[in-house]
Amino acid sequence: MTTTESPIDLLAQAIDRVGTPACVGIDPVFEKIPRSLRLDGELEAIESFSLRVLDSIAGVVPAVKPQSACFERYGSAGYAILEKVIDKARQLGFIVILDAKRADIGSSAEHYAIGAANMGANCITVSPYMGPSSIEPFLRAGLGVFALARTSNPDSDEFQLQTLQSGGSIVQAVGSMLAKMGDEWIGPSGLSALGAVVGATKAGDELGELRRVMPNQVFLVPGIGAQGGTIADIAPLVRADADALGQIGVIVNASRSVIFAKPEGDGSWLSAVHTAAMEFANELRGLRATI
Amino acid sequence: MTTTESPIDLLAQAIDRVGTPACVGIDPVFEKIPRSLRLDGELEAIESFSLRVLDSIAGVVPAVKPQSACFERYGSAGYAILEKVIDKARQLGFIVILDAKRADIGSSAEHYAIGAANMGANCITVSPYMGPSSIEPFLRAGLGVFALARTSNPDSDEFQLQTLQSGGSIVQAVGSMLAKMGDEWIGPSGLSALGAVVGATKAGDELGELRRVMPNQVFLVPGIGAQGGTIADIAPLVRADADALGQIGVIVNASRSVIFAKPEGDGSWLSAVHTAAMEFANELRGLRATI
Repeated sequence: MTTTESPIDLLAQAIDRVGTPACVGIDPVFEKIPRSLRLDGELEAIESFSLRVLDSIAGVVPAVKPQSACFERYGSAGYAILEKVIDKARQLGFIVILDAKRADIGSSAEHYAIGAANMGANCITVSPYMGPSSIEPFLRAGLGVFALARTSNPDSDEFQLQTLQSGGSIVQAVGSMLAKMGDEWIGPSGLSALGAVVGATKAGDELGELRRVMPNQVFLVPGIGAQGGTIADIAPLVRADADALGQIGVIVNASRSVIFAKPEGDGSWLSAVHTAAMEFANELRGLRATI
Repeated sequence: MTTTESPIDLLAQAIDRVGTPACVGIDPVFEKIPRSLRLDGELEAIESFSLRVLDSIAGVVPAVKPQSACFERYGSAGYAILEKVIDKARQLGFIVILDAKRADIGSSAEHYAIGAANMGANCITVSPYMGPSSIEPFLRAGLGVFALARTSNPDSDEFQLQTLQSGGSIVQAVGSMLAKMGDEWIGPSGLSALGAVVGATKAGDELGELRRVMPNQVFLVPGIGAQGGTIADIAPLVRADADALGQIGVIVNASRSVIFAKPEGDGSWLSAVHTAAMEFANELRGLRATI
């Protein structure tokens, strides 16, 4: 255990402060943005939409998760908008989880990590395929890290659910690797700075097993809303010994179902986003009953 | 088999034209850049160094591989330099392999793919962890794709060499997945638009098995030079039935041993880069003897 707070400790505090383990994904897609904003051009729409969404959900959820791909689609100009989005999110008090799914050999991973930290991201998502040395540089750069374990896409089974000779699935092997690595990065909250991405669209007994393998990990849970997962699906992921909401070890993300809550063209889209975020946040308060 | 040429077909043609399956990695790191360039400031040095390296190796090797991390370290300003590097590389006739190791659920993967294609990249590296739906959007965007199979970092064994109950390692399972997917993307050259990253730092019998699993895949082979791999290590990866250099199914990358060939501070660093690239290219011509 380290005595310095990691961004995961800050996330736990923010969850307790706001009272819900909810995260809103900032995934701007031009065609889905309200028509009134689209008149100004594609890049302007992406920027204006993202910044307004942040304003409308400030104080409603403790964290936001910008999807790097939505910005990188537009090259360096899009990347500059991502920087503005992260900057504004931090100003508004959000914990920022940059969804970038990066990883590379150690020296390159360090470049990625420094880039993300300099942009102001608190946490980042990474891929575990290259092993521990591709993940550690992100932790050393002071970031909270969520490594892919069980992803929410429909065909993730094809690779992730293959059974190893030593017993258990590839996902469980990743879980064991993350738990072992993460033990060196446990902060004052008792939570590791190294967490895992665990999709809510998968079977409950499988998810419960992942919690047993990774007792000190925070799970970033995508797949709620548009991807079909429900709040009840999350219960098996909760840490049974938690004594506060920030300790339950899950941060649940919804993207499209919140930010595109209103059919396009309607002038009241921002209040619809606010309402959808409130409902999502409130629904997740129900997870308190599981501890 | 498709009748339209993929970037992998273009790569095969470029290898035959230049006469060597060599690729130079563009991995600019400020501290390693010659002192004379560092006087202008960090971003200026990264840009100037990268563009000059491209000039000095034009016509010597058929392909270059910019490491996205080295540019993303500097946020949107670095990303803008990456765009200039890719643009100049294409102007100089290189096949450009963007080393980005991206992947995400389908809709996000599509954003990444469009971004890379719009920047002018011919090919991109991706991670296979999320399964086929996270890779296909890159192929559909018209990119050549190299998915991580066996990576060159020292601790890649920890995850990649675990044995599956069905027999074979995780790497071989990825290989089978790529071979199956890739069969739908075989171009006029007989090579699939979906290739694999296979590090040269690993054991020969393991590499030979990967060639058997993936007969139509081009292997992007890192790990030569600074990472310790040698040309002889590559022989097991060559396609036995190739009748031309462009058909041997390997493109071998060296980064640091070429671009940082000269100790810093020496005025003749550019000719050292040129010479190192020439030597590397010539050494790889020896692979012709294996077919």
